[in-house]
Amino acid sequence: MPSGNEKKIGVGLIGFGTVGGGVVKLLFENRGVIRQKTGLDLELRKIADRNPDADRALGFKVPAGILTSSADDVLNDPQIQIVVELVGGIEPAKSFILKAFSNGKSVVTANKKLLAAYGPELFAAAKKHNVDFFFEASVAGGIPLLKSVREGLVANNITRVFGIVNGTCNYILTKMSEDGLDFQTALKQAQEKGFAEADPSFDIDGNDSADKLAVLAFLSWGLAVPVSKIHTEGIRNVEKEDIKYASDLGYSLKLLAIAKSDGKAVEARVHPTLLPKTHLLSSVRNEYNAVYVEGDAVGSTVFYGKGAGRMPTASAVVADVVDIARNISRNCTGRVSPEFAQPPALVLKPMPQVNSQYYVRMYMVDTPGTLARVATIFGEHEINIDSVIQAGGRGEKIVPVVFTIHESNEKNLSDALAKIERLEIVKKKPVVIRMEQ
Amino acid sequence: MPSGNEKKIGVGLIGFGTVGGGVVKLLFENRGVIRQKTGLDLELRKIADRNPDADRALGFKVPAGILTSSADDVLNDPQIQIVVELVGGIEPAKSFILKAFSNGKSVVTANKKLLAAYGPELFAAAKKHNVDFFFEASVAGGIPLLKSVREGLVANNITRVFGIVNGTCNYILTKMSEDGLDFQTALKQAQEKGFAEADPSFDIDGNDSADKLAVLAFLSWGLAVPVSKIHTEGIRNVEKEDIKYASDLGYSLKLLAIAKSDGKAVEARVHPTLLPKTHLLSSVRNEYNAVYVEGDAVGSTVFYGKGAGRMPTASAVVADVVDIARNISRNCTGRVSPEFAQPPALVLKPMPQVNSQYYVRMYMVDTPGTLARVATIFGEHEINIDSVIQAGGRGEKIVPVVFTIHESNEKNLSDALAKIERLEIVKKKPVVIRMEQ
Repeated sequence: MPSGNEKKIGVGLIGFGTVGGGVVKLLFENRGVIRQKTGLDLELRKIADRNPDADRALGFKVPAGILTSSADDVLNDPQIQIVVELVGGIEPAKSFILKAFSNGKSVVTANKKLLAAYGPELFAAAKKHNVDFFFEASVAGGIPLLKSVREGLVANNITRVFGIVNGTCNYILTKMSEDGLDFQTALKQAQEKGFAEADPSFDIDGNDSADKLAVLAFLSWGLAVPVSKIHTEGIRNVEKEDIKYASDLGYSLKLLAIAKSDGKAVEARVHPTLLPKTHLLSSVRNEYNAVYVEGDAVGSTVFYGKGAGRMPTASAVVADVVDIARNISRNCTGRVSPEFAQPPALVLKPMPQVNSQYYVRMYMVDTPGTLARVATIFGEHEINIDSVIQAGGRGEKIVPVVFTIHESNEKNLSDALAKIERLEIVKKKPVVIRMEQ
Repeated sequence: MPSGNEKKIGVGLIGFGTVGGGVVKLLFENRGVIRQKTGLDLELRKIADRNPDADRALGFKVPAGILTSSADDVLNDPQIQIVVELVGGIEPAKSFILKAFSNGKSVVTANKKLLAAYGPELFAAAKKHNVDFFFEASVAGGIPLLKSVREGLVANNITRVFGIVNGTCNYILTKMSEDGLDFQTALKQAQEKGFAEADPSFDIDGNDSADKLAVLAFLSWGLAVPVSKIHTEGIRNVEKEDIKYASDLGYSLKLLAIAKSDGKAVEARVHPTLLPKTHLLSSVRNEYNAVYVEGDAVGSTVFYGKGAGRMPTASAVVADVVDIARNISRNCTGRVSPEFAQPPALVLKPMPQVNSQYYVRMYMVDTPGTLARVATIFGEHEINIDSVIQAGGRGEKIVPVVFTIHESNEKNLSDALAKIERLEIVKKKPVVIRMEQ
């Protein structure tokens, strides 16, 4: 029971879907423990949804008078100080948020799509109205990753941020690796288990990961990277034979979002990536997420947990609500800004300038001199071969050969491969998978 | 270069040792990037140390006039708003901190020993003087773990916190496991590599882990657990044969600090623990730390990184300095308190009431009926055997036998073992290692 000493903070929710339901559950069921910890009493005053009366399987009944079908009932309630936007997508979410700001309300969202597309505009609007705009749940679900980047690691020059930020893809790749499934079968299993949407394109084509990477890059370096400029490959074309060959070489295959800074340029890319099996990310299975954040002082840190789901995501949303409630109660809204105070002089590195290690698999005619011709072309383009393995099909006329390539330049590699592809001894287009240590 | 818009915050350091040197490096070398991110200009005004002029291998010269041999020069400087205490130990560290508080200065420390012994007294003093008292670096070095518990996971009832919080022990156990070394040889290697002190007792006997666990329990549940009440076993008596037998069973051995809450009682213990090899903590090698934090909403989260060392620890210290500087610049000191606003009604669970799974290894005479006698005693004490394996020595008269025990009660197990030890068929005292999933 409230002791009467707590500060009451009014909260409103727009969007009563899966995550919205989790937020409602937490704001009711953990209201007491949040009050115990913080001395703040979070009062959920209004829930707006186009279909407010549907059953959300909360396990309890939402008190009468809280539900409404009008977002304006939330946005215009003078006793609501914090609006939680869980509508998703660009509009009407963006208009709701801007209206909340102009009504002097702080906002919490999980909307990475909106952030990736309109982040800087929204940050500026929040600043103008002296309100907070937090979005921990937009990347890596319940893991307090963004707070760690913005606050816990603030003393570092961040050098590298990379990890598994899409649970759907990680689930599919886990099934392909562990059960030897092909992509389509693994996707179907993921859909049956609720880990993939009916239309899974946004996840499996890497777009969801790219949106999250844009958010991470902005918080790490203050650089707004347009999602359209992030090199993005999904997992649709991952073949199980490459997972097998890579496994034989001691590598696992993960969809990674990767961003690095050398202090002058930032590279940002999403693609299937081979990692040593001893790498911590290799042991991240199924729908879990994990992200490395590396800084010049702290070295490597890793943040691991559930990247999606009703309650993990709600945990992050309500943590943001508490953070803002602390600011409101102490009159220090705007205390931590998503933006750098001074925009840094960084540029985005074009993909052709990026360096990486590579796995290249090609089907070649198994005759003397074949390898020499390919190796010569690699050499002419400054591509340094690390190892060559005939991966199977011994005794066949056309055999799969896997090259691993020392750190080399993207453009050099694609120039070399364009020439190699034209050789009559090379059948099918070579498969290229980047590697990370 | 400062643009003139930043708020300048004066910082003073007491204790210019290894970590102190790292803090000085960061405050000089990353002053610019911290200013870029936050708009705050951290000015290191004074460094006090009994031996201020020794070389700290910083790679640059500390400006003249900053160094002093008197802590009072820091504590009485009216332009210093944040004091970093890195003296370590109880006194004079405690007096320095209390004097800083009464002079209106906030304090950052890495001193887990002082926190474990006098935390609540210091928290009350900080509150009374309306200053901040932060200590991220006291547990798990550079990993932003405490901030995550206090803020990022604030919406959760924390159910379990457990992990590897002592890099010395983890280094030694890694060497014992991977290279088959015995404890003494692995300890010697750790000392040669700088991962263990000349007198390693505080680390290897588990006391350092217990101090850290007390801090974690206080932040997770608001319960002040006296370190003397934490069941603490170190790794001094870990035998390499148990590491081998456990490995054959699919388990790795780690020194874990473990705390759990069932909402009424908290258990807290430090001891060697067997974990499935597939467990994420099993892949944490050498001097690294990793801690699971589990909450009712978020599920399992893991925080991984370097738990010690000059720059990782400095990263956490300076993050706290920035956190406090943000509060000072926005006039909201005390925004996040280490204490719960309302002390919860929790008690510490006495060790005999704790339940666990167990590995028990005993040397027994290899004759018919031996196992039945032991199993009967276990049964009489409600100890449920999961598996029994004769671990080696086939054909010998006296053989090692390993039992794994389903979740059972501590007191029941020790009562049973007291009886079993007295059987003439059991040679040597049984070895007991707790297991965690």
